[in-house]
Amino acid sequence: GPFLFFGNFDVESRSRVLCISAEESVPVSFQWDKNGYLYPTQIAQYGLSHWSKSLRMSGPPNRTVYESGLPGATANWDGDTLRVDNLKCIHFDSDISLKLSSTKKILFFDLWPSENVTISLSILMNKTQRVHLVYTPGKGHTVIFTYSEERSKMRFTRNIHNDLLKGGVITQSKLKRALPFIERIKFSGVGCLSNLTLSNEEHYQMFLSAADWFLRNQDRNGAGMVFGMAQGHALSVLSRAYVSSGDPKYLEAASKALPLFSLPSSKGGFKAVFLDSYVWYEEYPTNPPSFVLNGFMYSLLGLYDISTLVAGEDDITSSEARGLYEDGLSSLLDMMYLFDVGYRSVYDLRHFSMKSPPKLARWDYHSTHINLLYALSSVQNGSSQGQMIEIAERWTNYMLGDYSEHN
Amino acid sequence: GPFLFFGNFDVESRSRVLCISAEESVPVSFQWDKNGYLYPTQIAQYGLSHWSKSLRMSGPPNRTVYESGLPGATANWDGDTLRVDNLKCIHFDSDISLKLSSTKKILFFDLWPSENVTISLSILMNKTQRVHLVYTPGKGHTVIFTYSEERSKMRFTRNIHNDLLKGGVITQSKLKRALPFIERIKFSGVGCLSNLTLSNEEHYQMFLSAADWFLRNQDRNGAGMVFGMAQGHALSVLSRAYVSSGDPKYLEAASKALPLFSLPSSKGGFKAVFLDSYVWYEEYPTNPPSFVLNGFMYSLLGLYDISTLVAGEDDITSSEARGLYEDGLSSLLDMMYLFDVGYRSVYDLRHFSMKSPPKLARWDYHSTHINLLYALSSVQNGSSQGQMIEIAERWTNYMLGDYSEHN
Repeated sequence: GPFLFFGNFDVESRSRVLCISAEESVPVSFQWDKNGYLYPTQIAQYGLSHWSKSLRMSGPPNRTVYESGLPGATANWDGDTLRVDNLKCIHFDSDISLKLSSTKKILFFDLWPSENVTISLSILMNKTQRVHLVYTPGKGHTVIFTYSEERSKMRFTRNIHNDLLKGGVITQSKLKRALPFIERIKFSGVGCLSNLTLSNEEHYQMFLSAADWFLRNQDRNGAGMVFGMAQGHALSVLSRAYVSSGDPKYLEAASKALPLFSLPSSKGGFKAVFLDSYVWYEEYPTNPPSFVLNGFMYSLLGLYDISTLVAGEDDITSSEARGLYEDGLSSLLDMMYLFDVGYRSVYDLRHFSMKSPPKLARWDYHSTHINLLYALSSVQNGSSQGQMIEIAERWTNYMLGDYSEHN
Repeated sequence: GPFLFFGNFDVESRSRVLCISAEESVPVSFQWDKNGYLYPTQIAQYGLSHWSKSLRMSGPPNRTVYESGLPGATANWDGDTLRVDNLKCIHFDSDISLKLSSTKKILFFDLWPSENVTISLSILMNKTQRVHLVYTPGKGHTVIFTYSEERSKMRFTRNIHNDLLKGGVITQSKLKRALPFIERIKFSGVGCLSNLTLSNEEHYQMFLSAADWFLRNQDRNGAGMVFGMAQGHALSVLSRAYVSSGDPKYLEAASKALPLFSLPSSKGGFKAVFLDSYVWYEEYPTNPPSFVLNGFMYSLLGLYDISTLVAGEDDITSSEARGLYEDGLSSLLDMMYLFDVGYRSVYDLRHFSMKSPPKLARWDYHSTHINLLYALSSVQNGSSQGQMIEIAERWTNYMLGDYSEHN
């Protein structure tokens, strides 16, 4: 099913999202670093929001394929192209361009870049304004969007509307009324391309981009950094990617991560323990632990997802995840009360573990706490469900101005 | 020295204090029971406030002794009296009365009641209003003040102003301007009396009344109920009574109570443990424990008092109390952070131990928390002092409208 309320999220249009990385096809944040940063939590949220949106679609994407690379189907390119049979693509070594004449907003194609490939789109914003969106290779140049040429073949997927927004061409409110018209696409440099397509939506592809990013990130980094700070989300992404695609690489990546939930954070894992009594999965492993509530509950959701979605297919992974989930859940059922400060929830327990002033949860995090409690309660029953709903309702009332009573 | 800010308290004039028990010479509360109830915490506070007030006095009480019971000193009684040499008192078996003509507000005498002793005072409130304060024996009768005849000799001490107040004769604000004039005292029934005195203040005697109540209560009740819910206060009272009077019975009572601090509350002691990690002394032993903050800090003060005041005189008691104090203090230094909810303190941790809604501290309890932190910090040094002062200052700022920051 959809992941929580994430179908209502539009991660890539958030102001703290710099752009969607052309290389990774996942959002680049400047929440933590002004130069842009691949923030795993945001990537996972991007994936899960597109997953949820893809479930809302009534049918498959409405696609127009301009260049399939197949024999006899080569498009009417201006410029010299050469079909490469074995790769099912066309080669170019000088400027080529193609008339698109479409208002569909999602552009994607496969690219084998060889040398200085630059892509530009000419777009009519209205009767008088024409803009050019340019994607160029390289790092550190003054370019609008960058990708590297490290990988031999890449799937290039762009939401053109979002790029216009992030490029500062148009505001969110104006974009709602405008219907940008994609006139032409131009490729410069040397490379091969195929499957050039415009589509009304590619939520599932965008979801898979996020899942693939976690796969690549797991390959690139050591065990402790497998999922950065988003282990819970990552499990939710990977388990959905596995079930929807059937590709075992996603399951493998997820099950590789599970032992980290049993490994203390001091040794590179996610596990913390509250006063020798309660297991906790840390979103940001710190010493002493922070006990961040929302990250912990996302971990529980991820563990629940993987244990449920692969049950019957990989019982070892499923039962390992189930055990971790049950352990964490019993911590939550006791410890959630420590996050209740009588008129709000707190974001974490650093005020206890690090003796710092309490961190009240911002209202958006407070409501995330509530949503996560409802989500987790929905797969419980009996008294533990009742406990979670009681807290969720009390916390909802705090949003309406309620205060706890005095002694 | 004075006990905290208790010198500013006027326990017996509080609206929830029904009266001062004529039998016990300690306040009777109707905070918990409309029929009146001897509430140990209130009795201890009564004692400690009079202790603190007695330290403020520049000299001994200004007393007028009307009847000492000594040979040749018998007062000019109206009615038949008989001096009893061995008890140094006078006997009466019909109405006797004596002119007092004084504005001193504290009346005390020793009484050996035999049969239906009733005491009445005629008091001129102003030029036209005369009232009669009547103290009669018995329980459950419609009387103004009651005492029982269980004990053979009793010290009868009354603050006449407070009795006028509690009897509804005059309001607090009018009492400040009035100067009630005690005309006469009358004794009816059969009994003996001695040491009939009017005095301007008897704070030290009133303090000792509270200490004596704890002694009697310890005799009457089993180990677990030695001090009711006021073990911390009781230790502060008893240690002061011992040091000021030199009477070992107070020290003995205090040291008898110390083992209860090591005894689990489930076995009738005061000790609770937070998650197998932190020792706590319970004000109201409950199952599961409540972790009431102010009671715990009063216990620490009491333990500190006894360990300090008897050091060098009873090293066993002193070091036992010191050990209990140190254990509790290290719990406080970690656990006080759990009472910080970012804009207020909570009264207890029942929201964790019993999963009930958090109990925010009323502002008066919040300020008590702050005062207790300052008091305890004043006998610490180094980082633990700094920690306590940091929290006390943060909590003070909450009273000025400060909130903790958001994530």
